[in-house]
Amino acid sequence: MSLAHLLRGLPADDSEQDIKMGPNMFSDGLRTVDFVLVWMDENVSSGKRAQIAAAENARLKREIFERNLCAEGLSLEYEDASEKLHFVKIHASKEVLARYTEILKLRMPMKRVPDVMFPKEENLDLMLEVKSFVKKVLHFVRVDESTFPPLERTFTAEFSRDKKYLFDMDDPDFFSHSVRATVVDFILDRKKFSDKADDVFAFGINRLIADGVYKAAFPLHDGDYRKPGNQRSLLFSEWASVRKWVKYQPVDYIKEYFGVKYGLYFAWLGFYTHMLIPASIMGLVCFFYGLATLYSNTLSEDICNPATNITMCPLCDRTCNYWNLTETCTYARITYLFDNPFTVFFAIFMSFWATLFLELWKRYSADITHRWGLTGFDLQAEHPRPEYLARLANAREQKINVITNVSEPYVPFWKVRVPATLLSYSVVLLLITVAIGAVFGVVLYRMSVLTSLSLYPDSDTTSYMIMFIPITAASINLVCIMCLNYFYDWLAVRLTELELLRTQTEFDDSLTLKIYLFQFVNYYTSIFYIAFLKGKFVGYPSKYNRIFKFRQEECSPGGCLMELCIQLAIIMVGKQAMNSILEMVMPLFWKSLNTIRLKTGMGKEEEQEKCRTRWAEDYKLLDWGPRGLFYEYLEMVLQYGFVTIFVAAFPLAPFFALLNNVLEMRLDAKKFLKFYRRPVPKRVKNIGVWFRIMDIIARMSVVTNAFIIAFSSNFIPRLVYMMTVTRNNTDVGFLNFTLAYFNTSDFKENEAPIHPNMNVSICRYAEFRNSHLEPPGLKYKRPPIYWHILAARLAFVVVFQNVVGMVMMTVQWCIPDMTRKLRDEIRREAYLTNEIIIRQEMLRARGSAAAALPTADEFLQNEKQYQYDKAAFGSEGDLISPRAVGEGDLSESVGEDGDVRKRRSVEISSFEVV
Amino acid sequence: MSLAHLLRGLPADDSEQDIKMGPNMFSDGLRTVDFVLVWMDENVSSGKRAQIAAAENARLKREIFERNLCAEGLSLEYEDASEKLHFVKIHASKEVLARYTEILKLRMPMKRVPDVMFPKEENLDLMLEVKSFVKKVLHFVRVDESTFPPLERTFTAEFSRDKKYLFDMDDPDFFSHSVRATVVDFILDRKKFSDKADDVFAFGINRLIADGVYKAAFPLHDGDYRKPGNQRSLLFSEWASVRKWVKYQPVDYIKEYFGVKYGLYFAWLGFYTHMLIPASIMGLVCFFYGLATLYSNTLSEDICNPATNITMCPLCDRTCNYWNLTETCTYARITYLFDNPFTVFFAIFMSFWATLFLELWKRYSADITHRWGLTGFDLQAEHPRPEYLARLANAREQKINVITNVSEPYVPFWKVRVPATLLSYSVVLLLITVAIGAVFGVVLYRMSVLTSLSLYPDSDTTSYMIMFIPITAASINLVCIMCLNYFYDWLAVRLTELELLRTQTEFDDSLTLKIYLFQFVNYYTSIFYIAFLKGKFVGYPSKYNRIFKFRQEECSPGGCLMELCIQLAIIMVGKQAMNSILEMVMPLFWKSLNTIRLKTGMGKEEEQEKCRTRWAEDYKLLDWGPRGLFYEYLEMVLQYGFVTIFVAAFPLAPFFALLNNVLEMRLDAKKFLKFYRRPVPKRVKNIGVWFRIMDIIARMSVVTNAFIIAFSSNFIPRLVYMMTVTRNNTDVGFLNFTLAYFNTSDFKENEAPIHPNMNVSICRYAEFRNSHLEPPGLKYKRPPIYWHILAARLAFVVVFQNVVGMVMMTVQWCIPDMTRKLRDEIRREAYLTNEIIIRQEMLRARGSAAAALPTADEFLQNEKQYQYDKAAFGSEGDLISPRAVGEGDLSESVGEDGDVRKRRSVEISSFEVV
Repeated sequence: MSLAHLLRGLPADDSEQDIKMGPNMFSDGLRTVDFVLVWMDENVSSGKRAQIAAAENARLKREIFERNLCAEGLSLEYEDASEKLHFVKIHASKEVLARYTEILKLRMPMKRVPDVMFPKEENLDLMLEVKSFVKKVLHFVRVDESTFPPLERTFTAEFSRDKKYLFDMDDPDFFSHSVRATVVDFILDRKKFSDKADDVFAFGINRLIADGVYKAAFPLHDGDYRKPGNQRSLLFSEWASVRKWVKYQPVDYIKEYFGVKYGLYFAWLGFYTHMLIPASIMGLVCFFYGLATLYSNTLSEDICNPATNITMCPLCDRTCNYWNLTETCTYARITYLFDNPFTVFFAIFMSFWATLFLELWKRYSADITHRWGLTGFDLQAEHPRPEYLARLANAREQKINVITNVSEPYVPFWKVRVPATLLSYSVVLLLITVAIGAVFGVVLYRMSVLTSLSLYPDSDTTSYMIMFIPITAASINLVCIMCLNYFYDWLAVRLTELELLRTQTEFDDSLTLKIYLFQFVNYYTSIFYIAFLKGKFVGYPSKYNRIFKFRQEECSPGGCLMELCIQLAIIMVGKQAMNSILEMVMPLFWKSLNTIRLKTGMGKEEEQEKCRTRWAEDYKLLDWGPRGLFYEYLEMVLQYGFVTIFVAAFPLAPFFALLNNVLEMRLDAKKFLKFYRRPVPKRVKNIGVWFRIMDIIARMSVVTNAFIIAFSSNFIPRLVYMMTVTRNNTDVGFLNFTLAYFNTSDFKENEAPIHPNMNVSICRYAEFRNSHLEPPGLKYKRPPIYWHILAARLAFVVVFQNVVGMVMMTVQWCIPDMTRKLRDEIRREAYLTNEIIIRQEMLRARGSAAAALPTADEFLQNEKQYQYDKAAFGSEGDLISPRAVGEGDLSESVGEDGDVRKRRSVEISSFEVV
Repeated sequence: MSLAHLLRGLPADDSEQDIKMGPNMFSDGLRTVDFVLVWMDENVSSGKRAQIAAAENARLKREIFERNLCAEGLSLEYEDASEKLHFVKIHASKEVLARYTEILKLRMPMKRVPDVMFPKEENLDLMLEVKSFVKKVLHFVRVDESTFPPLERTFTAEFSRDKKYLFDMDDPDFFSHSVRATVVDFILDRKKFSDKADDVFAFGINRLIADGVYKAAFPLHDGDYRKPGNQRSLLFSEWASVRKWVKYQPVDYIKEYFGVKYGLYFAWLGFYTHMLIPASIMGLVCFFYGLATLYSNTLSEDICNPATNITMCPLCDRTCNYWNLTETCTYARITYLFDNPFTVFFAIFMSFWATLFLELWKRYSADITHRWGLTGFDLQAEHPRPEYLARLANAREQKINVITNVSEPYVPFWKVRVPATLLSYSVVLLLITVAIGAVFGVVLYRMSVLTSLSLYPDSDTTSYMIMFIPITAASINLVCIMCLNYFYDWLAVRLTELELLRTQTEFDDSLTLKIYLFQFVNYYTSIFYIAFLKGKFVGYPSKYNRIFKFRQEECSPGGCLMELCIQLAIIMVGKQAMNSILEMVMPLFWKSLNTIRLKTGMGKEEEQEKCRTRWAEDYKLLDWGPRGLFYEYLEMVLQYGFVTIFVAAFPLAPFFALLNNVLEMRLDAKKFLKFYRRPVPKRVKNIGVWFRIMDIIARMSVVTNAFIIAFSSNFIPRLVYMMTVTRNNTDVGFLNFTLAYFNTSDFKENEAPIHPNMNVSICRYAEFRNSHLEPPGLKYKRPPIYWHILAARLAFVVVFQNVVGMVMMTVQWCIPDMTRKLRDEIRREAYLTNEIIIRQEMLRARGSAAAALPTADEFLQNEKQYQYDKAAFGSEGDLISPRAVGEGDLSESVGEDGDVRKRRSVEISSFEVV
């Protein structure tokens, strides 16, 4: 097999592969394959006794397990691809499906009823016209209705075989693929594989897979993604293609194919991406506003004006020299692009945006989860993880599980759980320290480069330093972060394994917390440092604050915002690019490995032929593993953090996020369709813990943005200067105002430049301090204006935080979690179901109890209701089929005179429950 | 009827009244009376044609309505108390109850199973001992188990007649009073009272009552509250008695009697009262800490020290005189009681308390609502209000209701809704302005009293002023508030009526918003003013800030906290006292009125005899009206505001709230049991909008408390003084530090006292300002320390708010909304129900499909499970009753040898669904 083939991720002989590919059916061509189990007889040829015994044991388990499956009503079909590789195809009959759909309380579509039944929005004519206009304009982004015809919206109701009249069970597609796979999976999860009575936990396919009895269990893809004629290829070409980036996603189809959990991920990703559009636009506006007013900004123009000629104090001890402020001209201009008056407005906007995003997502997800029949979906008991049981196999103590009332092996929590948790959180803490250490390592790098660069006096040095140092530093940071992450992810799983957590959910929650905590610190520390610490406690010439004899890093006169910008841009964009590449390459690699493994396991050519079935092809694909979408969500939530927490420093963040996500969405889709097995549809109600994390990030972002504007930008000092210092409220002379005076004769020993490049008696530095002219007690101390500005900064934080908080609260109050339309729809659904059931019950009661009076008014409220019912049910289905024989036509008997009641009673008694 | 009788609220001939009082049964003595309808034939004697026609019309409606009720399966019994007064007693048969319980998806108790089935908490021996010790200690607060035996906890499941095996329907009490009343109410709400087909809205008892066809419809109290032997009297004596204040409430019994909505109110009130205990203790500790350290406080001791001898500038222009600071000695000491170092800690504690309260309430309410079978209770469609339909009777336009699909009269929203909403919110705004105006009226009162008092120079004046003025002012405030409230409540209902809102919920929400908004402003404005505005912008002698030529009010050197305290105490305590009194007197009055009306309506003596039935007695009681508990909740939520928002100013607030609530709880109970009809049980899932309001208040309280401590107390200036001004970090000389110097020669014309009581050249005032010694440009301007302190104050706010916010977020994160126990219980319930159903379904499927293999392992996982099932069901109920005849005893067949499977299959095939 050539490398080219390997890289394409597909077996060499792709082209001839369609010979055996029929639809996913049993050999009778009638029953669908709803699930496939795979097992391998690897040691069938080797003659070692232990291996033979193990194989025999596995065979026994399989036998019992499969017998139990049959007993439940599932049909199995066996297929031996080779001597080694065996497939078991599973089909669930309608009877089994109906039984389990009821037990699982799945909501199923009710009989289709004409359009009149769906709540229609109240539309003025004008509104309608606007809508159709918008529809026309947005035509190019809409899903193509010929490829993905909009699924007809139907009401759903909890399935019950006693209420057959609600459902159209004759429809061959009534039980969709999702339902079939869910039911089979539920059964596979419960069936025992041992006849021994005391082996309480000898059940469930997961345990069998963990023990190696089966190799895999999965539902099948519905065809080859390269050949049209199936959903997979349709989705692959029409959705999972970067060329379709501008189109909406066909979420309903995605959910049909992948199940709710994956559908919800893509719906969320799509929603998030759409919400990024206004944020990007505002970010771009902020940037372009800066660009447009670049040359009218007093501060940067003052800096760039050669006439200003301000000599600055050296940036480091001894080796550094005095420098002219004009050198930072470009830098000042770039800073202004991000730190202009519009930024404050933008920060406020983004705080609202973050809240609005969460609120609107609640509405949107309420809508789709209702559409997908998840309303009223509840807590379920969970089985212990196979790994947990395996580790506890020899535990002596037993304990009754309070839920299932079955005694489980049990280790008192202080014996394993407590030490393991302590250990793992100590390690987390240690690694967080390492991550913070790495950041400060980079700080030291910056400071040492600064010093070493200054050894070679050069006119360009300063501006070179200002761009070169942050960029290299940020890149080193990024590399550190990525390395630490990969190491840490590996470690976190192992640490969590040690904690001996009982269920998959507990395991996932513990892992999520660990990984998120660490990644948060890892990605954001350097940015927090630059935003809130760097240059804030520098001191002043002759009395610098020192750590390990190093002076603290300084910010240049434009503020630290520039560096923050560079840091953010590199870490965020770099991370995204790196992830995108890895996401495409890694699955390719793993899938090729799978294929090779399978091929080498086969041996003969003709046996390989046999593998060109759907089940063999899917077996080659990657398994989802228990954590499914964890890393996908993690990446996006970290990005959300970049977009909100530091947005005041880097207004282009939403734009870059948008670019990334448009790509990410399609690449993810491609990856899922091409390299992964079809996942077992899982029911989830929402995106889980991620919503809470984003909520916390949104709240945090209000504070961080307030602080960035108050303390990192020039906004407040400039405002104070304009309001109180100058007479005519302009910012002329602001540059001079921000720079303090220093008399070079006050330099301490070893601090003054050793080779001064000019004869300087007074140099300037960017602080609010008294000048050298004050009496000794006050010299270089804080002047009143410093306290004044500090108070103003803090007041800004208080006002910003509370105003934004108040508006956020109002927004949350005013935007209900459900749209009015959805609320009406749910009520309509409940009302309709109730009415139908009441009517049917009434009929049933009447059938049995002869005493009931035959008035019709009880269940046919009025003519209109009646006619409507007829329209709704009579013409379409046969919910209440008239069996009136000799009583005249129904439409006739609905007369308009007063004696309706009597006539009705006759009609009604001739109705029957179908 | 004498006044004494009237005041007792009972008819004069109480004592002989028990003659006819049997249990609430039909005359056959078998069927219970589940509901009573009352109608009156008031115009039966007068001969006017219009009235006769109306009476005939009403009779017709009643006839049709009652016939429809019968058709539904309800039994009716008629009783004519007099020629005028008629009762219709309603009984729901078991069949009807079962049918509607299923339709309403009520959760009903599952068959009782032995204790082993309930999730037990994991308890160490030590824990158990501690628990039993606590139980012993708290014995005196526990509900007496002989009067209210703890209700056995049972699992519940949604009722379904197909799953009869889950429920013990043979139990005569299976359908409780609540269920009966709910079902009958549901039917009464739906039945038509007209045969005309086009009268779509001719249904529902509410409309009939609104039209006067019936006078009332209510379920019955279960007996006389003065005679033992029924739940009502038991609750009355054991719960609704102030003497039982120390006992827990028997919430389950309350819920059984009043229904979930009322049960939840008392549960909430009880929970809130309990949560107030730690808050009160901390408040008292804060107070007593102040008391204990009173004489060691430098500031107040300095003020009280006659040697200090500080001459203060006059408090008003011209008429006021210089005064000595020592006069405010007592005042300074009292201030210290509330504003001591402990207060900061207390404020932080209360912020957590507020969050903790909400979080723990979530857990607690999740627990009780689950216990009460409300899990999974959903949105329901609502009928239009009768008032709405009446007003729209002549509307021409019709519109399809999207939920019920019935066309309703419809007025386009811009014709009535928009102008009415605009009008009513304008009025609200106007009244809010009036309320604010009233507060400023009181401010003017304070200022003018200040001036007038100063006309009579007296040595006591100043300290007199300081106590007298705030107290009278606050009392006037309170009176204004109460008057405005009563007027406004009346107005709000009328305004909301104008808005033409369709459903009761819409109406209630609109009304709640209006009333709460107004009451919030009304109660809290004066307090906000004193806390955050008063004395903050006074200016300084010779340049006072003036509004309408009045100088702004000043705070005395101890800060405004004292006045805030007085204001809070009077408004909060006064309001509570007033409400308690009104709550007891008003129902008494109304009930007496009802009785008189009924009596005068009767006429003859013997007819009055007939009225001594339960139904006649209950008819005399007060109706609940549509808004039920609105005012009860409103009062408590306003109190919650006092307890949290301003707690830093008045640490005793929680204590007074506690005192009030202990009383309130019992008085409310008394009122409900004695004066009101038994309410129709309503299902609610939570306390609704009040939770969100309290959440907002809790968040607001963090900010207000931060501001009170930062700006109203001396905490920050004292801290800054100790940290930066003095060398040895003590607060010696702090008093002097807070007072600025003023040279009396700088007084403007008309500002200096006209009759100075002493010869003063320098007077002091409480501000941070430069002294008279500075050069003219800086004289009386703000010194650096002012800005420094301002920055410190703001920094405190920022730190306080964010630290508390962070801890609150952590608390919310760490406390799940459900206890682990409840979560386990819900899962256990779901698991158990599922397992039973799966087993039953299996049996059913096997019964029909002969192909199924007869292995037992599918539904009896192991020996233990099997034995457990036997213990759970076999011995108690007859869920799966063994009908094995000749197969040997069950307990024998559960052997321990290997051949269990075969034997089992025999057993199982001999099980049957009961």
